[in-house]
Amino acid sequence: MKQLIIDRLDAFRAQMKKDGISAAIIPQTDAHLGEYIASHWQVRRWLSGFTGSAGTLVITPTEALLWTDSRYFLQAAQQLDGTSIKLMKEGLPDTPAITQWLVANMVKGQTVGIDGFLFPATDVDNLSHTLARHGLLLNTGFAPIDEIWTDRPELPADPVFIHDVKYAGRAATDKIHDVLAQTGQQGAESLLITDLAEIAWVLNIRSSDVKCTPVATAFLYLAPAGSTLFIKEEKVDDQVRGYLAENGVTTAPYNSITGFLESLPDNATVLFEPGRTSARLRDALGGRGISGSSPIAMLKAAKNQVQIKCTRHAMESDGVALVGAFMEIERRMREDIPITELDVADILTHFRSQQEGYFDASFDTIAGYEGHGAIVHYSATEDSSVRIEPHGLLLIDSGAQYLYGTTDITRTIAMGTPTEEERRDFTLVMKGHIALAQAIFPEGTRGGQLDVLARQFLWKEGLSYLHGTGHGVGQFLSVHEGPQSIRLNDVPYPLVPGMITSNEPGLYRADVHGIRCENLVLTIPAFTTEFGNFYRFETLTLFPFDRSLFDISIMTPEEINWVNGYHREVRSRLTPLLTPEQAEWLRIKTEEI
Amino acid sequence: MKQLIIDRLDAFRAQMKKDGISAAIIPQTDAHLGEYIASHWQVRRWLSGFTGSAGTLVITPTEALLWTDSRYFLQAAQQLDGTSIKLMKEGLPDTPAITQWLVANMVKGQTVGIDGFLFPATDVDNLSHTLARHGLLLNTGFAPIDEIWTDRPELPADPVFIHDVKYAGRAATDKIHDVLAQTGQQGAESLLITDLAEIAWVLNIRSSDVKCTPVATAFLYLAPAGSTLFIKEEKVDDQVRGYLAENGVTTAPYNSITGFLESLPDNATVLFEPGRTSARLRDALGGRGISGSSPIAMLKAAKNQVQIKCTRHAMESDGVALVGAFMEIERRMREDIPITELDVADILTHFRSQQEGYFDASFDTIAGYEGHGAIVHYSATEDSSVRIEPHGLLLIDSGAQYLYGTTDITRTIAMGTPTEEERRDFTLVMKGHIALAQAIFPEGTRGGQLDVLARQFLWKEGLSYLHGTGHGVGQFLSVHEGPQSIRLNDVPYPLVPGMITSNEPGLYRADVHGIRCENLVLTIPAFTTEFGNFYRFETLTLFPFDRSLFDISIMTPEEINWVNGYHREVRSRLTPLLTPEQAEWLRIKTEEI
Repeated sequence: MKQLIIDRLDAFRAQMKKDGISAAIIPQTDAHLGEYIASHWQVRRWLSGFTGSAGTLVITPTEALLWTDSRYFLQAAQQLDGTSIKLMKEGLPDTPAITQWLVANMVKGQTVGIDGFLFPATDVDNLSHTLARHGLLLNTGFAPIDEIWTDRPELPADPVFIHDVKYAGRAATDKIHDVLAQTGQQGAESLLITDLAEIAWVLNIRSSDVKCTPVATAFLYLAPAGSTLFIKEEKVDDQVRGYLAENGVTTAPYNSITGFLESLPDNATVLFEPGRTSARLRDALGGRGISGSSPIAMLKAAKNQVQIKCTRHAMESDGVALVGAFMEIERRMREDIPITELDVADILTHFRSQQEGYFDASFDTIAGYEGHGAIVHYSATEDSSVRIEPHGLLLIDSGAQYLYGTTDITRTIAMGTPTEEERRDFTLVMKGHIALAQAIFPEGTRGGQLDVLARQFLWKEGLSYLHGTGHGVGQFLSVHEGPQSIRLNDVPYPLVPGMITSNEPGLYRADVHGIRCENLVLTIPAFTTEFGNFYRFETLTLFPFDRSLFDISIMTPEEINWVNGYHREVRSRLTPLLTPEQAEWLRIKTEEI
Repeated sequence: MKQLIIDRLDAFRAQMKKDGISAAIIPQTDAHLGEYIASHWQVRRWLSGFTGSAGTLVITPTEALLWTDSRYFLQAAQQLDGTSIKLMKEGLPDTPAITQWLVANMVKGQTVGIDGFLFPATDVDNLSHTLARHGLLLNTGFAPIDEIWTDRPELPADPVFIHDVKYAGRAATDKIHDVLAQTGQQGAESLLITDLAEIAWVLNIRSSDVKCTPVATAFLYLAPAGSTLFIKEEKVDDQVRGYLAENGVTTAPYNSITGFLESLPDNATVLFEPGRTSARLRDALGGRGISGSSPIAMLKAAKNQVQIKCTRHAMESDGVALVGAFMEIERRMREDIPITELDVADILTHFRSQQEGYFDASFDTIAGYEGHGAIVHYSATEDSSVRIEPHGLLLIDSGAQYLYGTTDITRTIAMGTPTEEERRDFTLVMKGHIALAQAIFPEGTRGGQLDVLARQFLWKEGLSYLHGTGHGVGQFLSVHEGPQSIRLNDVPYPLVPGMITSNEPGLYRADVHGIRCENLVLTIPAFTTEFGNFYRFETLTLFPFDRSLFDISIMTPEEINWVNGYHREVRSRLTPLLTPEQAEWLRIKTEEI
């Protein structure tokens, strides 16, 4: 493998030389700027051998460097060993940003090469500006991968299918109408959509191009006079083609998007979001592009009543599956049958796949035992997976795609009698979870404003966690969606009724244990006063927290009531769906604390 | 007055016609983009007759419109009546933004005129971009005021004086060194400073050009080879001139700044902050300008140990003055001597002015009785000032400039036996105040993240307030300073040790009462753990809250302890500075709740 990587880098450098490129940047994304990408787009992985989901490679004639974040320091160090690629640890004070590094290591007049399809227009403008200030050039058309990656996987060809309006709640034709109306309000006639989840949502179509996210690889040009879906033709059968035609959408080859945009009439006005559209397509639009924000993000995030009802159903299915799975984990522990982190993931998949409408996992299960639980994005491999012992904490973060909804839940459970520290840590996390779950806030409030509610109790004890407290969740769509979020950083989007967001504070003690308590919550109206409209959260997820981990000596009566009330709700909603044996198990798990 | 305004508008329109301007925008600011401005710069006030501190005037050949916010709706309606100027209520859903209005009401090819000295470069770029998209032009050199405002006040000529290093804690020469070092880190050799408080801070100079803020009107060009202060020459006497020379600073006429920047060598690199530097000076810099952020804002905000000691001293002086003032208010009420809102302001000024080192108020006192307290920026006038009766709530927000520190304090007091609603409202505000005062947070936390702590209890009851919870405070400098703030909107600056910020949640019931509870707090280190450095607040302000207004039935023991602990601290710090009679008054006011 090591020599293979060195050979690939050399082949890449030969292309650089041919095109006069002194440094190339290879990001981890696709032409849709996605977070989860098909194997066709795994260029950074193929070139570096590093398999982490985040990281950017920089190649010069003499050096190769990989920037990645703390989640992957260990893994990257192992995978890069012997490849000549140097690990650049993002976020450490001594690590320069990529642009800083380029400016410091290049000579005036040299050229940086990137594939303009893989960078947001905004980023390219900033990069170009900074490089220019230091006398460096930028070539956004440097894309030599096809030349050297001879067995590069094809673009996915999985069939597209229609997401029934009985799940979606609103027909594609109506969504297109809404979106074009909002496009008009931004001073444009048509809209370019490159985000796969946005395309899936507006057309009510799905596919399996990307693991865990049921989207189809495509670009969409939405216009009142007729829309065009740029997609690999074999993905679309006659039924879907007919359905699209009914909605005024014709199909065209995936790669024809650039030429199509370039040949639009000069007086066309096409809305695009420069932070989420590639520089290459922005350039193709030229003066026809109207930079603004995609009207879809907010429309997609605020679920309608049908979607909410379907998602509540998904929570029941998931709750039933989890009862089965957690009972099975307990049984194996009780009967001393060896069980590893990977087994836990398999058990979860097994029980979920028995539920009606199960489609896929919504992300790779994180089952982290003791110290592994403290590695925030840990995903057990054959090498790392350990056997679970009858002591310590096990963190399980998992979710499913059902045709009718997407789930994402984290529970932390004690495998034996918990220690005082385990109970105290868990309870501090839960106090934050409860404070956020009970928040009431005025219309217009952003998630970032509520974030501290989940962190305050940890902070008072000198503890913290660095990941976000909450991310948006789609409906049978991406488990991470925007625009809202609840996190340390502010994002300028309010929480509005119908949004589904996670509530997942945590605490990670390196090499000891990780704790995270995650439910999904729905924003709903609370009340209206002379001071305006106020909203609150309805917790959607239905599965008990581990009663043995609560330290009620540091909880208020209100917090204890919340836990007992939540457990009552879980019991009453799930019991009718369970076997008598399961119902009895759940009754015990939801007894008052 | 009404006819005078109409005549002025006509004279202004004649200038517009001459210069081919179809719409002019007149903002409320000066060439330093300040919030508090000298009379020379009160152009918007002179042209419109509206005296509010916020508002923008737009004039076309046939119309005149004034945009202002809800604080001034009533006042503006009264003052604009009969002037032909239309009030545009900012923040209401039906009110277009100024740019929207211009775009909707102008015809392609027409020109908008502004004085480029009075708009940040960033705003001008945005405006220009939007106008261009609609076929409109922008002339940034339209400044006809001197032609028509024949008795325009001169630029202030108050003398500059040196702010002693015994108060400032760090010599100007060292500050200049720090600032230029940070300027270098942003890739520039020199720095253009147009913010008056930043100039006062870096040079340790003060003046009285602007009411309540001890600054001198000037521009500063800071460079390693020698700096230049652009200032009205008569403001600088020989001693100050010598002091400046010792620090490598020569003076030049105020108006020569533009020519100076234009004549800098082509290879000069001058850092400027485009959001806080006027378009006109940015244009004068041309290609020599390096856009970045002023290094001074953060340096100025984080007070050194000398400044902190001095500010603590200012809090003691202010506390003593407030004891005198509040005792006097009580005496007049007790003896049935009529007392109005204006009298309250006078009493405060009287007692403060007796303190050593008193220089000025730090802002116009807000004394709002009952319904007036609910008008957030209420300032009593001869017309509005009402007599205070022995019932209801009185809100008093006031502050002072001492040579050694700046204060800002709000207390809400019951003039009679408070009602249940008054106590409940007050206590909900105090619960937020206490939660913020007790917050502990990791290094890097921004004020906007903590804001909800002060609002959460109000929100749960369907109550809210719309102003910020906390603003930065200078030391013998502006009572509102950046870059940190604690508010609904996020600002990307962390709270760092040494920052002084207000903690001032409130609640306003229209026509009933206003409540605000404000102390100043200092950010200090709390502790360091394996999770990093944590900070907390030390409350600096020393004056009791009204004990009669606490409803302890809705307070936690922790909250009650905080109040009693704070009152003990106030008593122990102030008592040694008081007369026996005052000390006895304070003893009663600080008894346990």
